[in-house]
Amino acid sequence: MSNALTVTAPEGLPFVDFEREFDAPVAAVFEAHRDPALVAQWMGPNGYEADMQEWDFRSGGAWAYVHRDPSGNEFGFRGTFHTIRENELAIQTFEFLGAPDMVSIETAEFIDLGDGRTRIRGHAVYPSVEVRDAIVEHGMETGMREGYERLEGLVAA
Amino acid sequence: MSNALTVTAPEGLPFVDFEREFDAPVAAVFEAHRDPALVAQWMGPNGYEADMQEWDFRSGGAWAYVHRDPSGNEFGFRGTFHTIRENELAIQTFEFLGAPDMVSIETAEFIDLGDGRTRIRGHAVYPSVEVRDAIVEHGMETGMREGYERLEGLVAA
Repeated sequence: MSNALTVTAPEGLPFVDFEREFDAPVAAVFEAHRDPALVAQWMGPNGYEADMQEWDFRSGGAWAYVHRDPSGNEFGFRGTFHTIRENELAIQTFEFLGAPDMVSIETAEFIDLGDGRTRIRGHAVYPSVEVRDAIVEHGMETGMREGYERLEGLVAA
Repeated sequence: MSNALTVTAPEGLPFVDFEREFDAPVAAVFEAHRDPALVAQWMGPNGYEADMQEWDFRSGGAWAYVHRDPSGNEFGFRGTFHTIRENELAIQTFEFLGAPDMVSIETAEFIDLGDGRTRIRGHAVYPSVEVRDAIVEHGMETGMREGYERLEGLVAA
């Protein structure tokens, strides 16, 4: 699959780097991040329902949602949007409420590849290497891969 | 000086850790961070004037200020407050507009030491070790030391 997600967790540094391409124009990929009704359709692992409590997708805005798995377990997440630049950049904080105060900051670039294709390049930074390792071990990559697969279906539609 | 600032930039990790004690109760030290009129009196190196454009010191709020040095040069900063817990914790993003999109995230604990004394313990995380090194080399410690000295005068008053 040419659009496969790549996730890198560099040894000894509290980072996760990721990259994925989409067969869709940058405006469509960006809009799927901006509109909470669209975000709810693709974010997270398969089979989860998202309750978007707040999604103020602008520089200085805040966000919060709850993910519900098929057994009804709830997982809350919240953060702020530090910078949003249309069709270009999102820098946001990210907290899983099950690990309170362990807040990461994530930069996602939206790169127009031409020919109606887009690359997302992300860099997430954690408060420690240990926190980064725990998140990677808890299935971060699977959740991202499944989410981005649904996003691809959404923007191709 | 028993209340001296300590700043540590660990080799090979994109962190700055800092710690300082104050001869003032935690509520006074926290209030000097919450009230923008007080923040303007102590934040940053000596001789700078602060123009507080926004200071919404609550979880999900945004902030921005401009520092003006004695020659009239202006330095803009902005960010978001991810978490604010009264007399306890502040987690915020931080961007110097002269280095756009290089956003750090900083956790500051306000620790009640009893006897009217308070410790601030901070952990700042940068998007790369190189960005961390550049900020340390550009006088981060001096600005913090001078700022905290003025904060000490303010809360002791």
